[in-house]
Amino acid sequence: MSRVPVAILGATGMVGQRLVQLLADHPWFELIELAASARSAGKPYGEAAPWRLPGDPPASFIDQEVLACTPAAVSAPLVLSALDASVAHEIEGTFRAAGRLVVTNASAYRDDPAVPLVIPEVNPDHLALLDLQGPGGIVANPNCCAIPLAMVLAPLRTLGAIEAVAVSTWQAVSGAGYPGESAWDMVGSVHPHAGSEEAKLAVEPLKILGGPQAQARFPISARCVRVPTADGHLLGVHVRITGSPSAALVAQTLRDWRGACPPLPSLPTAPLRLTERRDRPNTRLDVDAGAGMQLTVGRIEACPVLGVKLFVLGHNTIRGAAGAALANAELLKATGRLQA
Amino acid sequence: MSRVPVAILGATGMVGQRLVQLLADHPWFELIELAASARSAGKPYGEAAPWRLPGDPPASFIDQEVLACTPAAVSAPLVLSALDASVAHEIEGTFRAAGRLVVTNASAYRDDPAVPLVIPEVNPDHLALLDLQGPGGIVANPNCCAIPLAMVLAPLRTLGAIEAVAVSTWQAVSGAGYPGESAWDMVGSVHPHAGSEEAKLAVEPLKILGGPQAQARFPISARCVRVPTADGHLLGVHVRITGSPSAALVAQTLRDWRGACPPLPSLPTAPLRLTERRDRPNTRLDVDAGAGMQLTVGRIEACPVLGVKLFVLGHNTIRGAAGAALANAELLKATGRLQA
Amino acid sequence: MSRVPVAILGATGMVGQRLVQLLADHPWFELIELAASARSAGKPYGEAAPWRLPGDPPASFIDQEVLACTPAAVSAPLVLSALDASVAHEIEGTFRAAGRLVVTNASAYRDDPAVPLVIPEVNPDHLALLDLQGPGGIVANPNCCAIPLAMVLAPLRTLGAIEAVAVSTWQAVSGAGYPGESAWDMVGSVHPHAGSEEAKLAVEPLKILGGPQAQARFPISARCVRVPTADGHLLGVHVRITGSPSAALVAQTLRDWRGACPPLPSLPTAPLRLTERRDRPNTRLDVDAGAGMQLTVGRIEACPVLGVKLFVLGHNTIRGAAGAALANAELLKATGRLQA
Amino acid sequence: MSRVPVAILGATGMVGQRLVQLLADHPWFELIELAASARSAGKPYGEAAPWRLPGDPPASFIDQEVLACTPAAVSAPLVLSALDASVAHEIEGTFRAAGRLVVTNASAYRDDPAVPLVIPEVNPDHLALLDLQGPGGIVANPNCCAIPLAMVLAPLRTLGAIEAVAVSTWQAVSGAGYPGESAWDMVGSVHPHAGSEEAKLAVEPLKILGGPQAQARFPISARCVRVPTADGHLLGVHVRITGSPSAALVAQTLRDWRGACPPLPSLPTAPLRLTERRDRPNTRLDVDAGAGMQLTVGRIEACPVLGVKLFVLGHNTIRGAAGAALANAELLKATGRLQA
Repeated sequence: MSRVPVAILGATGMVGQRLVQLLADHPWFELIELAASARSAGKPYGEAAPWRLPGDPPASFIDQEVLACTPAAVSAPLVLSALDASVAHEIEGTFRAAGRLVVTNASAYRDDPAVPLVIPEVNPDHLALLDLQGPGGIVANPNCCAIPLAMVLAPLRTLGAIEAVAVSTWQAVSGAGYPGESAWDMVGSVHPHAGSEEAKLAVEPLKILGGPQAQARFPISARCVRVPTADGHLLGVHVRITGSPSAALVAQTLRDWRGACPPLPSLPTAPLRLTERRDRPNTRLDVDAGAGMQLTVGRIEACPVLGVKLFVLGHNTIRGAAGAALANAELLKATGRLQA
Repeated sequence: MSRVPVAILGATGMVGQRLVQLLADHPWFELIELAASARSAGKPYGEAAPWRLPGDPPASFIDQEVLACTPAAVSAPLVLSALDASVAHEIEGTFRAAGRLVVTNASAYRDDPAVPLVIPEVNPDHLALLDLQGPGGIVANPNCCAIPLAMVLAPLRTLGAIEAVAVSTWQAVSGAGYPGESAWDMVGSVHPHAGSEEAKLAVEPLKILGGPQAQARFPISARCVRVPTADGHLLGVHVRITGSPSAALVAQTLRDWRGACPPLPSLPTAPLRLTERRDRPNTRLDVDAGAGMQLTVGRIEACPVLGVKLFVLGHNTIRGAAGAALANAELLKATGRLQA
Repeated sequence: MSRVPVAILGATGMVGQRLVQLLADHPWFELIELAASARSAGKPYGEAAPWRLPGDPPASFIDQEVLACTPAAVSAPLVLSALDASVAHEIEGTFRAAGRLVVTNASAYRDDPAVPLVIPEVNPDHLALLDLQGPGGIVANPNCCAIPLAMVLAPLRTLGAIEAVAVSTWQAVSGAGYPGESAWDMVGSVHPHAGSEEAKLAVEPLKILGGPQAQARFPISARCVRVPTADGHLLGVHVRITGSPSAALVAQTLRDWRGACPPLPSLPTAPLRLTERRDRPNTRLDVDAGAGMQLTVGRIEACPVLGVKLFVLGHNTIRGAAGAALANAELLKATGRLQA
Repeated sequence: MSRVPVAILGATGMVGQRLVQLLADHPWFELIELAASARSAGKPYGEAAPWRLPGDPPASFIDQEVLACTPAAVSAPLVLSALDASVAHEIEGTFRAAGRLVVTNASAYRDDPAVPLVIPEVNPDHLALLDLQGPGGIVANPNCCAIPLAMVLAPLRTLGAIEAVAVSTWQAVSGAGYPGESAWDMVGSVHPHAGSEEAKLAVEPLKILGGPQAQARFPISARCVRVPTADGHLLGVHVRITGSPSAALVAQTLRDWRGACPPLPSLPTAPLRLTERRDRPNTRLDVDAGAGMQLTVGRIEACPVLGVKLFVLGHNTIRGAAGAALANAELLKATGRLQA
């Protein structure tokens, strides 16, 4: 089977590099083009984007010329976007208007009713929204915290309606990109996330967990804190569910969950990995489960305020960003939408 | 005015050393005796307890002989205890039976109905319970997380009844004592607190915020996580209050609060220090406010689930332990109970 | 080809777990027995040694019973030892006396003239010392810092005699085992290594870089400092070489070096990986090169005091411990000594 | 005695804020003006420079207007400069030309033969160079690593001539200013300092330890590494001294050293504080000795390569920057040069 040619928009940043890493040897996709801002365009990728991830950059891309982020410069019919929020709306819109499929990690279109906000295991049916978008299309993945939150809530809907969620986070510095957080603010220190993380976490799960055209309705209150970890967002989730299922039933439900999508190359067999150890998940020790695509869930216990509580850990730049976009691209392929 | 002679039980540990530091030059108390386990007794303090706090140990104590933790060996009428939980119940009981006043940071007697669990600014009236205890007495301070939690809840009772609390923590490693947490588990990592912290946080505030003989009644759900900070526990608190006071009113109430006790040498004028900055409190930068005795409160905002939420940071081995015990001792003195 | 049955002595510690991980799916060896101290013997491995490495323990060993560290209990002809220094001398001696081949990471026999201290790429010929040991034998690998130091010095001997070395280290906490360093001492902090690391670093390279029966002779001065990294020891090496070769020549020599041993399953093609970037090696980003078995060398520059200087980084519990022992075992197999 | 009015140039950065902190309540100086770049000029200081140091900014400066860095805007006869290297040469030159005394932490003039590079305890006599500079003048302090290095070498000259130095560093992130190092590069990681630190360390001590007009001559080889500590540079120093004094003699000499300058308000009685503990200095625990102005020296031992070695730790933004400039200003006052 010939592989689908793909391009990356915003290939030089933290998430862009993760996309390059994940696409370097992909069974379904062939990475043919790397595009970035005007500052980088025209340079060899290795010079425009000094490699910041563990290990070496895929050798074949080091000398490849970085292209401008325009449909004229980029030929691939499928583009994965890791663009900065500030420019994503305009550039991604241009690509869609040019008939391309854009699978994006940026937040620009997440609240657009015509744009599906998709986690393959949770709401693959939302891809139907693409039919509203004309020849091209944009598919977005949620925020890096909204993904693990939605993924532990989704299977619980079989036990009762989600009524309320209070969530706290212990978020890694890679979530801020590069250079991102100042080391001065993080050495031996934690502090509240100053951006819009809490707001995103309050709304994105409602779109994901609703029907394609109808949002779920329950309050989500989030407290987001940056901690000195490199990769991996830990969430402490308190949830109220109609009927007040027991912690044991919640655990069994999460353990058994297999998701609603067909098998995809980037996805582990089980989206969730449960740990019985009281001091786990441990960010550094658990973050790479399932090559960074599997969540680790622990300490599922009764909560006297909302009913049940648990911890969930996910790799924020893989499961929560680059891998999330890639899995969405794989879902498009697996559901026949790349030939559309 | 002559100073009251005091002794420290458990003087060699992390909290014991903080007590030595805080008592080294105290206006009301004269530290005359240092006691510790049989392993340390008989040795010079500087040898039994290599100094682990920033700075040098108070010079006058380096060569002082460590005593056994018995009323026979220790003469001071007032003892401050930083004993390990495992031995505190027996030893502190022995001192009380010998007619001594024991001000303890240990958890052994916190749930004893006859033992006051006191934060001077919050419930100084609980000292009346001492009358139930016979000639000697034990006064306990709460857990290092329960103290800041109770201190932000206490003033809010003027706005309405506390109905429910969900709290998450970002806790420093000094809370585990020394050697405490393994560096392997904490370098670039966070993990759930494996001990009984969440359970303590669910019950201790109810005793503090009740009357001397009647506990408060509302559910508290806690998620406690150890993070790689040295000193300082950050709490994210969600609270439901009858009447749903606004975040602005909550902020004003906390800012104006001065506490219910007379001025004490260890207490700052205002128990709480409010910050307007979105990325604060920052553990390392804010932990030493008020010489470690003042809490920093920030991000007081509406919570769609419980009504209002905020962050509060406190120094866990000062405000949350050694300083808490010392302030209780000062309260005993200020209220005339040392002559009793 | 049938695989050689092997056992691990000291299987429950940090290095023991690395050995289990590395041997779980090995082409030449079949891990059949796990042995540890009396405290662990008789328990299932998963219970005796809660897994502390990233990822899950190999499933097949979780329920396997831990054996006592005696030749009677352990049947494998080849044992890999990760025993504590305090017990290694006696136990390893007992296994040798019973005719077993012991490949050890412990320091007990490193200075024994009859025991080869081997890095496969550097001094495989030292295995000839085994002939002095009787039917059984002990092969040791060097200390976790001595290995990278010896590995950058070894190829430079083709340029001239090594005359003097000054080395400083930035050492990860895993080098202290588990629980090892207290998090209190390491959060946002560094401190001199209090143990015998500097002394080992001053003598072990001389044995490795000498002939089997004659030590090399040059002074090594080491300053070892523990830093808050999880895995990976960085060394700053200053070296004086007869003839004062240029930094460029040193770089070329290190880049071209392939080592003196046959290809082994655990070894990368090139023992050393050179980086041109001024801010590398970076511990977290470079430590896993070559599955933790390849060293990263950078900043090779002229030194006005000793002639040339460079940085070298290696994974201390893989290249510097468990992987070092395993590579020695592979070397025994590749050189026909397992049939001896 | 009326206090001397002073201004700060570059008041908004990490070192500028330290200067504000140190000058807020100074016995000899009255801080009257805060100046910074065009981006900040005209704004209230509290808005131009959100406070990043522990604690609160001195209340009196929060609303003070930030001035432009020109002699027209700034009236004080004495200015302390924490300007960025990129602009320091021009601006400081302008102030000197306008007849002002400039005490600078910037590197722009450090190698100017007419500009004294001064550490009060080491070479106060270099101030005589001011006579070469005309009515105004510039006095520089050395780099944050060069200061502790020069301060441990200076007293050793009484034992013999310094012949060679090899030095390694474990440097805190505050040395890079704010935002400075990316947290991504520093969480659980260390890496070589990519800038000119090693070059500065090779030359600045030679100017300081020479006569006013004649540099010292000995080679210094430096390896500088950034580590995840907030404040405090640890140096491992190997030194060759004519006559090879013993470690014990070196220790005694350092312990007894009192420096060559008159008592100054910012200086501790003893410039150096010796520790006997094998695992000290510990950055976090020792950095604040002497209010950040005293160095901690430990592990003074024989070195088989250069003769003697030791560790020294100093607070890089106080002793190594803001406090160094302030002490130089105090030295000007104490030696009568402020009336010149």
